[in-house]
Amino acid sequence: MNTKNNLCDFILFGGHGDLAFRKLMPALYHLCKDKYISSESRIITVSRKEISIDEHIKLIEDKLNEFLSEEKIDEEFFKIFKKQLLMVTIDFADEKSYEKLQTILNEHSDRERINYLSTSPDFFGTICKSLNHWNLISQQTRVVLEKPLGRDLKSSQEINKEVLKYFEEDQIYRIDHYLGKDTVQNIMALRFSNRLFVPLWNSNHIDHVQITVAESVGVENRWGYYNEYGALRDMIQNHLMQLLCLIAMEPPCSLEANSVRDEKVKVLRSFRNINDEDIKTKTVRAQYKAGSSDGKTVPGYLDGKEEGSNTETFAAIRVDIDNWRWNGVPFYIRSGKRLQRRNSEIVIQFKTIPHSIFGEDETSINANRLVITLQPKESIELKLMNKIPGLSDSMKLQQVDLELNSPHNSDRKPDAYERLILDVVRSNPTLFMRLDEVETAWKWADKIIEGWEKNLSPMKTYTAGSDGPSAAIQLIAKDGRSWNDE
Amino acid sequence: MNTKNNLCDFILFGGHGDLAFRKLMPALYHLCKDKYISSESRIITVSRKEISIDEHIKLIEDKLNEFLSEEKIDEEFFKIFKKQLLMVTIDFADEKSYEKLQTILNEHSDRERINYLSTSPDFFGTICKSLNHWNLISQQTRVVLEKPLGRDLKSSQEINKEVLKYFEEDQIYRIDHYLGKDTVQNIMALRFSNRLFVPLWNSNHIDHVQITVAESVGVENRWGYYNEYGALRDMIQNHLMQLLCLIAMEPPCSLEANSVRDEKVKVLRSFRNINDEDIKTKTVRAQYKAGSSDGKTVPGYLDGKEEGSNTETFAAIRVDIDNWRWNGVPFYIRSGKRLQRRNSEIVIQFKTIPHSIFGEDETSINANRLVITLQPKESIELKLMNKIPGLSDSMKLQQVDLELNSPHNSDRKPDAYERLILDVVRSNPTLFMRLDEVETAWKWADKIIEGWEKNLSPMKTYTAGSDGPSAAIQLIAKDGRSWNDE
Repeated sequence: MNTKNNLCDFILFGGHGDLAFRKLMPALYHLCKDKYISSESRIITVSRKEISIDEHIKLIEDKLNEFLSEEKIDEEFFKIFKKQLLMVTIDFADEKSYEKLQTILNEHSDRERINYLSTSPDFFGTICKSLNHWNLISQQTRVVLEKPLGRDLKSSQEINKEVLKYFEEDQIYRIDHYLGKDTVQNIMALRFSNRLFVPLWNSNHIDHVQITVAESVGVENRWGYYNEYGALRDMIQNHLMQLLCLIAMEPPCSLEANSVRDEKVKVLRSFRNINDEDIKTKTVRAQYKAGSSDGKTVPGYLDGKEEGSNTETFAAIRVDIDNWRWNGVPFYIRSGKRLQRRNSEIVIQFKTIPHSIFGEDETSINANRLVITLQPKESIELKLMNKIPGLSDSMKLQQVDLELNSPHNSDRKPDAYERLILDVVRSNPTLFMRLDEVETAWKWADKIIEGWEKNLSPMKTYTAGSDGPSAAIQLIAKDGRSWNDE
Repeated sequence: MNTKNNLCDFILFGGHGDLAFRKLMPALYHLCKDKYISSESRIITVSRKEISIDEHIKLIEDKLNEFLSEEKIDEEFFKIFKKQLLMVTIDFADEKSYEKLQTILNEHSDRERINYLSTSPDFFGTICKSLNHWNLISQQTRVVLEKPLGRDLKSSQEINKEVLKYFEEDQIYRIDHYLGKDTVQNIMALRFSNRLFVPLWNSNHIDHVQITVAESVGVENRWGYYNEYGALRDMIQNHLMQLLCLIAMEPPCSLEANSVRDEKVKVLRSFRNINDEDIKTKTVRAQYKAGSSDGKTVPGYLDGKEEGSNTETFAAIRVDIDNWRWNGVPFYIRSGKRLQRRNSEIVIQFKTIPHSIFGEDETSINANRLVITLQPKESIELKLMNKIPGLSDSMKLQQVDLELNSPHNSDRKPDAYERLILDVVRSNPTLFMRLDEVETAWKWADKIIEGWEKNLSPMKTYTAGSDGPSAAIQLIAKDGRSWNDE
């Protein structure tokens, strides 16, 4: 639980993969540079790649230069950091090949170990089994699992069951990088440290909630992978559900991991049961057609795919939560690829005032809103009305946007992965998903998947670069509401 | 009700006095320059001074150059403005001398007339009587009364009775320049256009309210005048009561003048009755002793006054409002001269959160506050808690101050007197005090004055340049609270 200079061996399975280069190694670089992780700690890349340690270090250096958020690598610091970099070539499926890892790890046999599995989930079981075989799992050993954790409840349970043969639940860190964003944590800070929100945060004063995770990119060369999942499995079941839970949860007993996760899972369990009629009226799925993105013509999802596909690249769902706090407050969620702009946001739309004394014709009074933006730029804006200064006879009002996030004191803003890796190092699982959360979210998603397989909600299309299918606009419009488009 | 180019004759009694030079004439200059008042309108200074019209114009020009908020008079515009300037020498007490005024006004006998009485209230009756005598009051004629409107209920009633012989209540504009501040009007805009404040604005969530009007100046050469009044009569009975009413009032039926004033007077009528025990425990009065201000030694209030005085230069009072909204929410008000700094503010102190999950030792959570500052610089700050960005293990919180006032779109900010004079021109009395408001406030003040005359709350002292008497600190401290000193 040290704040600084935590000592561990960090074993990065799939350490020559895209995520490792883009996110994990830059995060480890910063955590070591800022001394959250001690310079004695080792970062052991495990990969199928047969390269020398010098080639490995050169590769990491190049990739850091490419992906560090600031300009360039710190040459002085890298002289220290590169001594922390080790690598071992392993065929994940070949148990024998793990002996080389044992040799390295046993140089510090009592050290805390973090196994970060940045591999296909197909290998999660084998890797854990092999670690166990070579006696590399102690009570101080943790394992971090990257999504996808299955494509439905059953496959998810299989993956988790394999891992749970060798690790206890409290040693397993299921990562969702959305939860590592400072702004997401500020949701909890704001909700639970301000009297202001105490009477407001419920169905008396909130009209509805919107959660959008929109990407402008398409599926590109990941078609084969993506086509196995689609928007519901790839984004909604995990990222959007996690965000929804943080907005909707009751105040936890404490910030201790299981208190927070107890409350999150209660939200998921309070989701209204989905029947066939709900699939028809409250869910929308769609695929993008050819269109344009960033001024360039881009192909549709099915273009050039003779085999066709029933995988949605966009989904919008109305979620109802049947509990005391949220009765009558719909949560509209949507996520998709090839949309007009990259934009992740949560909108808490408050009800209008009971009555306006300001004259209807002269002044339109916007209902208050809290808009939490995660991408492209993190912010939390509270939108209120106030008086336009000046001498006009009747009172003229305007909207004022208040920023509730504080600016970072350093120029560099830690990436979500830094936060989450550091939390694993500190053995703090608050921001990670517990097994029951994952399974409850899958149970709900499975109902929708089943309904879609029965074609209760036919697949729609939308033009690449648009705001999504018109059915998604109708989904909210038929309730007399509209998506935030500010 | 025109927004622009309103036509009237503006008769400024006491137009060679300090208020006229500092505030009224600059306000009229701006209103004419910005075409709220048409260039046909005449500004007729009525004064005892025997000077020529050329001398008068020169005097006004000099004073404008001295007191305009911007750098210098606009020479081009002044060529037009000076044609609007007239003057007439009148001995207020001599009815005959008003004939000269009649001659001038009858040049435009059908014009709307505004009589602004910037004189001692001793003349209010005489002036009105003389205007009536010379047939200068029509239904379109208004009269503006500057404070003091008496020194107790009885004298106030006498003044008002005199004026009401010649003017209807809806022709009488009792001015309180605090209400002309844009920020004060924004209190109404914020309260009644934001859902956010609907559930918060009551005893469930507000712990208490503080209203402070602190001056750093002393009584100086106005001793003779001030000694007749003191802090309660001079500041609290009018300015602080008006501010209190805007904070405490129920939502009015509309923004129409009588709707708003109905709600304000209801607040005053809901004040808990004050008994002898309350005078002892809930009121503090004090006089300043010699001390220092702005680094200079300054004399005490009684220094060099052999006759002595029982007039307070500081008063602090706990007001309780017995109605549904405010039961159990004390309003602490204070005002005084020769205090450490010039500062007028209203603090809405919300209750603390019901329970902190953030760890008591590590983080102190300030209760939310709304701080409305009128002097030295207008602002409305909502003080919330949020997360300190960064990677610390436990959630660290800090206060964030959100500005709810909008910046003015022009560089120049209209003075309160501009707003109020323009409202008189437009016949909009919303921001002026109705007779029943004045009288109800005096009834309450009289109870305290009586108690003080019985010496139930002995006169305290405080050092010039300090925060006031320690008894004022105790007044709030004994309830477990403290004055805002941010």
